[in-house]
Amino acid sequence: MKIHNFYAGPAILPKEVIEETSKEILNFAGSGLSIMEISHRSKEFIKVMEEAVSLVRELLGAGDDYEVLFLSGGASSQFFMVPMNLLNEDEKAAYTDTGTWASKAIKEAKLFGNIDVVTSSKADNYTHIPKIPALEDGYIYLHLTSNNTIYGTQYKQFPDVQVPLVADMSSDIFSRQFDINKFGVIYAGAQKNMGPAGTTLVVIRKDLLGRVKRQIPSMLKYENHIENGSMYNTPPVLPVFVSMLTMRWIKKSGGVAAMEKKNIQKSHLLYQEIERNSMFYSPVNQEDRSDMNVCFLLHDRNLEKEFLENCKKEGLVGLEGHRSVGGFRASIYNAMDIDSVEKLVGLMQEFERLKS
Amino acid sequence: MKIHNFYAGPAILPKEVIEETSKEILNFAGSGLSIMEISHRSKEFIKVMEEAVSLVRELLGAGDDYEVLFLSGGASSQFFMVPMNLLNEDEKAAYTDTGTWASKAIKEAKLFGNIDVVTSSKADNYTHIPKIPALEDGYIYLHLTSNNTIYGTQYKQFPDVQVPLVADMSSDIFSRQFDINKFGVIYAGAQKNMGPAGTTLVVIRKDLLGRVKRQIPSMLKYENHIENGSMYNTPPVLPVFVSMLTMRWIKKSGGVAAMEKKNIQKSHLLYQEIERNSMFYSPVNQEDRSDMNVCFLLHDRNLEKEFLENCKKEGLVGLEGHRSVGGFRASIYNAMDIDSVEKLVGLMQEFERLKS
Repeated sequence: MKIHNFYAGPAILPKEVIEETSKEILNFAGSGLSIMEISHRSKEFIKVMEEAVSLVRELLGAGDDYEVLFLSGGASSQFFMVPMNLLNEDEKAAYTDTGTWASKAIKEAKLFGNIDVVTSSKADNYTHIPKIPALEDGYIYLHLTSNNTIYGTQYKQFPDVQVPLVADMSSDIFSRQFDINKFGVIYAGAQKNMGPAGTTLVVIRKDLLGRVKRQIPSMLKYENHIENGSMYNTPPVLPVFVSMLTMRWIKKSGGVAAMEKKNIQKSHLLYQEIERNSMFYSPVNQEDRSDMNVCFLLHDRNLEKEFLENCKKEGLVGLEGHRSVGGFRASIYNAMDIDSVEKLVGLMQEFERLKS
Repeated sequence: MKIHNFYAGPAILPKEVIEETSKEILNFAGSGLSIMEISHRSKEFIKVMEEAVSLVRELLGAGDDYEVLFLSGGASSQFFMVPMNLLNEDEKAAYTDTGTWASKAIKEAKLFGNIDVVTSSKADNYTHIPKIPALEDGYIYLHLTSNNTIYGTQYKQFPDVQVPLVADMSSDIFSRQFDINKFGVIYAGAQKNMGPAGTTLVVIRKDLLGRVKRQIPSMLKYENHIENGSMYNTPPVLPVFVSMLTMRWIKKSGGVAAMEKKNIQKSHLLYQEIERNSMFYSPVNQEDRSDMNVCFLLHDRNLEKEFLENCKKEGLVGLEGHRSVGGFRASIYNAMDIDSVEKLVGLMQEFERLKS
């Protein structure tokens, strides 16, 4: 039975990436060694890192004014590394509060400077993306979470402000087109749209660096990783390798533009059914609904378990909503084909027939 | 042709671990999903994490007074996390300087407290393990690097001091028996004796925590990772999984005692040949020679390239000495069988015949 992988992260990867990884685990680049046991300083792996960086540049349209890093520690480590590297103690940054991850980013940033939460949808249980007011002068950057995995909201357009944007794009990197030149920093844990858990992409505009006065441990300083091409210490070799393969697959499949088209098709199909079906509803403000994580609920929440069981029986896994919100969440990242969404829609329709 | 993997790290893994990983990449625990695309909160992966922790406890003999963590960021991140979590600004810790990695640990620690380098072999180019003098009162811990990958030295016995030891065991964890109760913290990047690059083992005695007054970012605070069973954020799933498989293999192969016996056989065979062979020599003080990384040189260093070429032709790779010291380094970790060392010894003998 085909398993349809709706997990929010770690999440679905392209079948051909999985198959190629399985082979290279046995014999990497014809070296006779596993990709897991070859030196990161071998010419074979240096090529992988170079290709990964070059694919990021190409897929995002990032020019020479940006540096591309593959680090570890997850996006959660960027919550503190960004302000630690960009913000002096007496300076201020603006943050938007659109959910759990945004709140965590705010909490960590407060250790390093003056943090103003300029907008929040917390009072509405994060069911929409709040408007950003005109910013007063003096902010070093504006931080936002481009897609909120837990609440199923997404910035459809990025704000036009006078300061560089810093964005946690963990759950929608490479899923849609945008103008990178608005951004000072983009970071993303790999394990949603880019690869397996274990590496974090950081794209950073060079001119933002070198300003802060605090002492920073070597491993936490962006400049050290830049100078060493993401090999200041041993990088997470396999996660970087699989991320590179996934980006190769995105490029071959038509790039970010093709991903965007396919993602909108999938999300529209599912949101349409949520609207049509008398048993389900979306708690999320219509214009802010995520194309990556579709959150929805049953009017009769007593039936949740039964619907999840039905899904599991048919091979649809990972549909439980985040433990903090309940209900359902269908994560439909780049690697998911439309047939999985059609299958889910079919089960929603069957459930309606069964129960009414 | 069989490739003999002498890389210093990432390094050789057991063949059966590689083969099992290749399979589980396609279908993990019968889930129909890859280990790379399954949620870290799935029951299948939670079992992996639990088994990994329990194997560490068993292999090291760590009791309930110790916590076991799988983090990311490499041992290099522990260089600053240890003092950040254990040492107040006005307190002091003792450090031993036995090579590049020890020096890096010292450099990072200086950001967090008073660091006394109580012994060093730097003046002798790190060719021996220096004696540790009687320590004055008041140190919170004594830090050492149990095995020096670059210089090929190793503590054969750990010092008896009045304070807990903190040890970077990246290159000899699980390779030999020792009494864990001397240690306050043990940390080790996985990519030498434990698994692939991408996770770091931290074993920590609970009573050392909760003392420091500084504010620590959430991701850098040991307590947060302990409270969340190494899942404060998404862990590096695949590196943890492969580390677990490698520890299973160690246990099945007779545990750390059996590893130690095999490692001594291999290193003795190689050091014996270095002593016997008129062309090669070891720069390392005899009683401090590492059983993991055997460093040696040719008297005629002009022949280095030729010897390396001969080795490569026969499938022996990774024998270049670290770029900071040159010569040769044979890393002969747990997973290496004695036949690879015999092959190397054979080539050394052949080279002697050829050149004399």
